[in-house]
Amino acid sequence: MRCEVVAVGTELLLGQIVDTNSSWIGEQLALAGIDSHFQTKVGDNRARIVSAFRLALERSEAVIICGGLGPTQDDITRDALAEVMGVELVRDDAIADVIRQMFAARGRPMAENNLNQADVPVGASIIEQRRGTAPGLICPVMVPGPDGEPIEKVMYAVPGVPHEMQEMMERAVLPDLRLRSGEPATILSRTLRTWGDSESGLAERLAGRITELDERGNPTLAFLASGIEGLKVRITAKGPDEITTRELLAHEEGVLRTLLGDIVFGVDDETMEIAVASLLDARGLTLGLAESLTGGLLGARLTAAPGASAWFRGSVVSYASEVKFDLLGVPEGPVVSAAAAEAMALGARKVLGADVGLAVTGVAGPAEQDGQEPGTVFVGLAFEDTTETRELHLPGDRDRVRDFSTISALDLLRHRLLEQDAG
Amino acid sequence: MRCEVVAVGTELLLGQIVDTNSSWIGEQLALAGIDSHFQTKVGDNRARIVSAFRLALERSEAVIICGGLGPTQDDITRDALAEVMGVELVRDDAIADVIRQMFAARGRPMAENNLNQADVPVGASIIEQRRGTAPGLICPVMVPGPDGEPIEKVMYAVPGVPHEMQEMMERAVLPDLRLRSGEPATILSRTLRTWGDSESGLAERLAGRITELDERGNPTLAFLASGIEGLKVRITAKGPDEITTRELLAHEEGVLRTLLGDIVFGVDDETMEIAVASLLDARGLTLGLAESLTGGLLGARLTAAPGASAWFRGSVVSYASEVKFDLLGVPEGPVVSAAAAEAMALGARKVLGADVGLAVTGVAGPAEQDGQEPGTVFVGLAFEDTTETRELHLPGDRDRVRDFSTISALDLLRHRLLEQDAG
Repeated sequence: MRCEVVAVGTELLLGQIVDTNSSWIGEQLALAGIDSHFQTKVGDNRARIVSAFRLALERSEAVIICGGLGPTQDDITRDALAEVMGVELVRDDAIADVIRQMFAARGRPMAENNLNQADVPVGASIIEQRRGTAPGLICPVMVPGPDGEPIEKVMYAVPGVPHEMQEMMERAVLPDLRLRSGEPATILSRTLRTWGDSESGLAERLAGRITELDERGNPTLAFLASGIEGLKVRITAKGPDEITTRELLAHEEGVLRTLLGDIVFGVDDETMEIAVASLLDARGLTLGLAESLTGGLLGARLTAAPGASAWFRGSVVSYASEVKFDLLGVPEGPVVSAAAAEAMALGARKVLGADVGLAVTGVAGPAEQDGQEPGTVFVGLAFEDTTETRELHLPGDRDRVRDFSTISALDLLRHRLLEQDAG
Repeated sequence: MRCEVVAVGTELLLGQIVDTNSSWIGEQLALAGIDSHFQTKVGDNRARIVSAFRLALERSEAVIICGGLGPTQDDITRDALAEVMGVELVRDDAIADVIRQMFAARGRPMAENNLNQADVPVGASIIEQRRGTAPGLICPVMVPGPDGEPIEKVMYAVPGVPHEMQEMMERAVLPDLRLRSGEPATILSRTLRTWGDSESGLAERLAGRITELDERGNPTLAFLASGIEGLKVRITAKGPDEITTRELLAHEEGVLRTLLGDIVFGVDDETMEIAVASLLDARGLTLGLAESLTGGLLGARLTAAPGASAWFRGSVVSYASEVKFDLLGVPEGPVVSAAAAEAMALGARKVLGADVGLAVTGVAGPAEQDGQEPGTVFVGLAFEDTTETRELHLPGDRDRVRDFSTISALDLLRHRLLEQDAG
């Protein structure tokens, strides 16, 4: 079964509102095992809305329509539905009463146009409104099938307000769709987050496995580039029930982890800082930072989640060179250098009273510094009786250089803590 | 002129990524006075991508296509463009060389499939890649016009990575579109950014002016709530040419500034940190920070723009209480207090060798600390021979408390520097 999404509203086309509804609906459809090949945004223009609905009905068996159900002149989804169904709109007195009662209960006067929301195309069934004033609609429509015989397709109309839409989708639309699709399967997904290889490198590591899975068709893999969040590999598995599907996912995760090794730093919502935090926490180690070009980003990320006080001591953001010399004890000289990064890490560990010192210094750009190009970054790490440094040459503008420096530093620390286990 | 947007990528349909690109592009088109009636999302399927391009070309004179230009098998936008144009793809050696050089400069091995990004449909012109590896494309295409005579339409292909897309749109696509559209009216907008009043308070200050403008119809005002970026008032003006339109905007800005006073901290992209930076810079003053619950956010924001080294000395992120006592000289006692904030500001100014010390300490949550509720925050400021503190009770979760603390601290400093002028 195929189901398209049509989001209605000129404000969406003008970029005044980002259409998060279609994304949310797309995700629900995927999890329900229903294919969705197109999503369309159309403005508040009747002819264009009608053409968008008709096109979606040609290509798919079901259409979810979001928005345009409100009381104002701009809200013409109901009229367009009636036109596509070839029927009239009729005022539903029971809905009109509910709308009047809602205003009365809130002690607010009701503008007459609110009753437009009680107009229903003949033949449509109603999805009772529980949060907003407008009910949703389930509109069956007969459409010529491939052999010319008419077949029944369906349009669902839900409000554009996200929490109203989501409640109606879960209560009425998705159950109705599942019933119509006859899809018995459970679909689940899991995302492995990686850092340290390119998209093409990742594709090469997994090429053999992808070919195997392509033949089998289940589970499937998808790559997602996520900028400074690294590259993600999403596993989607389909099974007759939840337990079997979870087993499929778990098995595939095992296979991929073997192929990818320790470039996998987390699963689903686990960020790099969460990975580092849990390694430090498990080892009872405290961390002190010395930052330069990142200006505090590294500390900000590490303290984004609660519980950081167990292992985070603080950060010396030594933006001015004299602060590096005076506060961190970096020897005078070029501050964009491996030697400076090492001294900063040692200095941070000392003045912040931490077990581990992590430092980052470099050139964010746009201008060069100490004769070094923008994107030149040194990471320093002091742990136990060793220090190590990394020289990086990072692409992109100032923001990206700072972001990449941050995650690169965290990844260096992550590997060092993992090696400690291995060693 | 009409221009549609087609976003390519199965991950968009599956809801793994929210399509913010189309919204951004829609906003740019509106500002350029170009109509956009439909936006479509389509997955990585060649036949469906081709049908989406063809449909958009039937309905509109131009199509902006976003995504699917990467190196992997999923990236088939180039193939689809060539099919719609009825031409071959030819490898462009110059682009291939640039891609090879990009990998070489980063010291990373290049998988051979990266060179797919150098394939160009015959007849297309190239938008040079400056941030990512894939160039953009401008693809003219002859399409039957209303009277059967062929007319030239155009497809633009840009990468799906937002910052790469935006850079190419501004540098190449929008100028080309404006040229083709020959749009005679100039539409320009300017946004005033405010901090320190509620949305309803702002609406009251501007009520009279809004009534006046509603009658006149040009310029128009819109309010935009932007969370920690404050509330924005957007002026949109339309005129026969750029000079007249700019004069309209400037006049309206003057009227609004008189009504709003010093809650206006910036215009358009001027963030609070840029406002603070320019005040410090103009006065030749240097700043040192002491942060606790913000973990480095304040420093990170202040150093986001280049040029901070002229006035930013650094930050002591004293997350652990002992770091406050030992490094900043805060007297032992409760660290979530006005006294601690004041001592931190004085300590930061001293150890970082700055003219101004700004400090923030508080409870980000979710748990309370020192008997204080989450959201309790103290800001301290040390400047010349005075210190001042502010006690804040901020709403929201951990993220919002940290963000609001940051901007509140910056706004305190901004007012103090402005008072210095007045005094």
